Amino acid sequence: MPTTPQQIDLNADLGEGFGPWRMGDDAAMLDIVTSANVACGFHAGDPDIMARTFALAREKGVAIGAHVGFPDLAGFGRRPMAMTPKEIEHAVAYQIGAAQALAAYAGHRIAYVKAHGALANIAEKDASVADALARATRAVDPSLTLLAIALSEQTRAGERAGLQIAHEIFADRAYLDDARLQPRAEPDAVISDCDAAIARLREMLSAGALVTVSGKRLPTKIDSVCVHGDTPHAVEMARRLRVALAQEGFRLRPFVEG
Amino acid sequence: MPTTPQQIDLNADLGEGFGPWRMGDDAAMLDIVTSANVACGFHAGDPDIMARTFALAREKGVAIGAHVGFPDLAGFGRRPMAMTPKEIEHAVAYQIGAAQALAAYAGHRIAYVKAHGALANIAEKDASVADALARATRAVDPSLTLLAIALSEQTRAGERAGLQIAHEIFADRAYLDDARLQPRAEPDAVISDCDAAIARLREMLSAGALVTVSGKRLPTKIDSVCVHGDTPHAVEMARRLRVALAQEGFRLRPFVEG
Amino acid sequence: MPTTPQQIDLNADLGEGFGPWRMGDDAAMLDIVTSANVACGFHAGDPDIMARTFALAREKGVAIGAHVGFPDLAGFGRRPMAMTPKEIEHAVAYQIGAAQALAAYAGHRIAYVKAHGALANIAEKDASVADALARATRAVDPSLTLLAIALSEQTRAGERAGLQIAHEIFADRAYLDDARLQPRAEPDAVISDCDAAIARLREMLSAGALVTVSGKRLPTKIDSVCVHGDTPHAVEMARRLRVALAQEGFRLRPFVEG
Amino acid sequence: MPTTPQQIDLNADLGEGFGPWRMGDDAAMLDIVTSANVACGFHAGDPDIMARTFALAREKGVAIGAHVGFPDLAGFGRRPMAMTPKEIEHAVAYQIGAAQALAAYAGHRIAYVKAHGALANIAEKDASVADALARATRAVDPSLTLLAIALSEQTRAGERAGLQIAHEIFADRAYLDDARLQPRAEPDAVISDCDAAIARLREMLSAGALVTVSGKRLPTKIDSVCVHGDTPHAVEMARRLRVALAQEGFRLRPFVEG
Repeated sequence: MPTTPQQIDLNADLGEGFGPWRMGDDAAMLDIVTSANVACGFHAGDPDIMARTFALAREKGVAIGAHVGFPDLAGFGRRPMAMTPKEIEHAVAYQIGAAQALAAYAGHRIAYVKAHGALANIAEKDASVADALARATRAVDPSLTLLAIALSEQTRAGERAGLQIAHEIFADRAYLDDARLQPRAEPDAVISDCDAAIARLREMLSAGALVTVSGKRLPTKIDSVCVHGDTPHAVEMARRLRVALAQEGFRLRPFVEG
Repeated sequence: MPTTPQQIDLNADLGEGFGPWRMGDDAAMLDIVTSANVACGFHAGDPDIMARTFALAREKGVAIGAHVGFPDLAGFGRRPMAMTPKEIEHAVAYQIGAAQALAAYAGHRIAYVKAHGALANIAEKDASVADALARATRAVDPSLTLLAIALSEQTRAGERAGLQIAHEIFADRAYLDDARLQPRAEPDAVISDCDAAIARLREMLSAGALVTVSGKRLPTKIDSVCVHGDTPHAVEMARRLRVALAQEGFRLRPFVEG
Repeated sequence: MPTTPQQIDLNADLGEGFGPWRMGDDAAMLDIVTSANVACGFHAGDPDIMARTFALAREKGVAIGAHVGFPDLAGFGRRPMAMTPKEIEHAVAYQIGAAQALAAYAGHRIAYVKAHGALANIAEKDASVADALARATRAVDPSLTLLAIALSEQTRAGERAGLQIAHEIFADRAYLDDARLQPRAEPDAVISDCDAAIARLREMLSAGALVTVSGKRLPTKIDSVCVHGDTPHAVEMARRLRVALAQEGFRLRPFVEG
Repeated sequence: MPTTPQQIDLNADLGEGFGPWRMGDDAAMLDIVTSANVACGFHAGDPDIMARTFALAREKGVAIGAHVGFPDLAGFGRRPMAMTPKEIEHAVAYQIGAAQALAAYAGHRIAYVKAHGALANIAEKDASVADALARATRAVDPSLTLLAIALSEQTRAGERAGLQIAHEIFADRAYLDDARLQPRAEPDAVISDCDAAIARLREMLSAGALVTVSGKRLPTKIDSVCVHGDTPHAVEMARRLRVALAQEGFRLRPFVEG
């Protein structure tokens, strides 16, 4: 039986504005999370927003990752795109490099890479895309960690590439019995009730396992919990999850220093 | 009196396609030049073209630089944009980082940074923009060389930032008496006759000076000669300039290894 | 002495989201204004937002205009762009046509054209750009009205092109003595206090004149009052201005039906 | 048995540059074809190129159509995009309107709509997308003709929408037995030999039928023949097809005047 880990990371997607537009309350979220997945200009974000978000994260002691996505501002990276694995590799490498440069500029350092939206969904189950993501990460900087959806093709691709992997679970998303996230479009895929999300998270952490819609437990390493930053009650949900984790005895820390 | 340098670099702007579109004959130019200024996706170029150009440059032993420009595909980076120096810094850092990542991906290494189009023209005379360019370069990687227009504000900004500087002259552009390039729109600003360009280049190299439209000689260090890759006779012009340089006893080599 | 007009139009910039991003509360504003300036995809807006905004405007009986701007999402059309008058003409014609098609699709009809942001500012004083705007409007559909800043180059260009012109004043912006809007960057350029804006508006309407920062009165026809839709108190300000206008005895109606 | 038609249209995709980039030889093609499918800024083209292409087409007496595609410059509209039929309707309406405005600006008139690339391929077999295309066309202007791939879902959708339909065949593409174009990626999908293409075209026109890879004949109305403008020998192929059609006794004319 897996033992309860002593420390845990809380991550959220931030820096998701573009030009004149904003999304979510980055400053409030940066007071709560320990790792920030920062958009790199392809599905959201621009050089100014990136620089600002990295500087703020540094100030608040929050670790940062390159949140890489499809080149699709209009669709926010949520639409699958017909790109070859090789094209995805190039697009991912480009974004990581851009993020590294702006992090250096802000006196901070990209610690990890995480896939966003449709790219993440595809890389959850398609080995060739998951490998593209891992290979690009390794080619740019083999010391980068891959923040991967627990029990997904992403974790296996990260292992094949020899990368360090942080295993991520979702407090507010339902899991299918094959460990995949239930598609957002389906009813009950997203858990918006705070108490339900906290109860679920406690169960998963104490079991060291994903708990699926049918009640199955799928054992997994758990390094980080993803919370959402762009929903109406995002800040409240994140704050309560953090409190709940602390009450359970977890020490909140970025996984990259673990 | 300045002595004739023993070696010289020949640089050209390459990788200037986008998506389905191409510009110039990159493969032919990479057989001629010693340094390739590669577009980084803002005024031209995309991750696939960058990866391909870097790989080809590596194969042919050509040094590579991040050719940074304004975010303006439709205007090819030739239109001045109302960006603050701080916004320019972020945009430049972003592009350098993206280029570094794709160069690493191709097993090559970005050796220098050069400004493109309107950004280069503004940085030729505006110290705040030239400083933005130099600061971004230094922040991302202080070992990068700045390929700067000889006797321009760019060279002074590079010195202020403590960067290594390569001084560049143009064989096929007329100089004003203040060392600035005559604007393209004016008659005789561009020298399209090969023999005239070669004669000019010889004169400038042997004098160690820019030769202006009025015949003035403005002494300068000369590390690199820029040739254009996108004109109808670009390849022919570049080839003949290279031959002429060799005949003059110059050894053609990237300035970064000098 | 100009007589007080019996009816007045209230216009605001709407449909200024893009892809996943929103700006302002369009539904609330459409309950208040009589004309909606709808972004056409160049500085903001996309085909879906346009279709939705036109449909909602139709439902609420609000007239619609093509709010044309520079092709610059990242800068929200607020940065001057180095485009020739001819390029501006083409860009304006393109946007008007796109708006007409989506309006037809929604069972509504584009009644007027208004310039946005930097394009509006330049066309306020540069006759060649104001003419480009007016000529494009006329070429696409000579029955379109030009909603022009009162006493600006825009109104004169509209006259030269033989277009119907609606003269617009701003309740919440200070005027210089030459009838131009005080630049936003300067202190006191924007009047954010509701009572002050209402008092100003009353004074201008009763005088039939712009009132400048030095107290000068510049007589003008006044067909429409512009209110802003994207500031924190935009809806409140707009609502109070509407109430004040009604109390003054004005009938609120789109100028195009006047 | 179908009778040989007396007149035929020859169409090609033109105006496929963007910003500084060009594709194909538009001026040469406009001397050969009778209808030009002009890109509308989503997969290629921009307002200046559109205005120029429309003006040139008018000068040469060539009919023009809005060549509508997915919003994907980087992929040239050749990548399927995960857009709903409703989003496609809006995007198509937007492009048609923009094209109409710039055609009016050039003193010409959009006569028809044709789908490009991945949008055309999907609308060949997916009724909901074909209907989106037809509905948008009808909503913007019911007098527009739909230039549809013969025997495809596009023609049926055009009929459902009550549009006039022009039936198009390809001289240089192989047909499968279900009347669909053989995918480009497969061997022998594209017929690059001029003589073979001409022989094929003669056979199809005299039979009044598509001729499939297995030799089947699928009877169809034939109003227009599509030739490609962006291949190395495009101009030569188009010229020879035109000569061959004339030799067969066809009168080359735009279908919209038929």
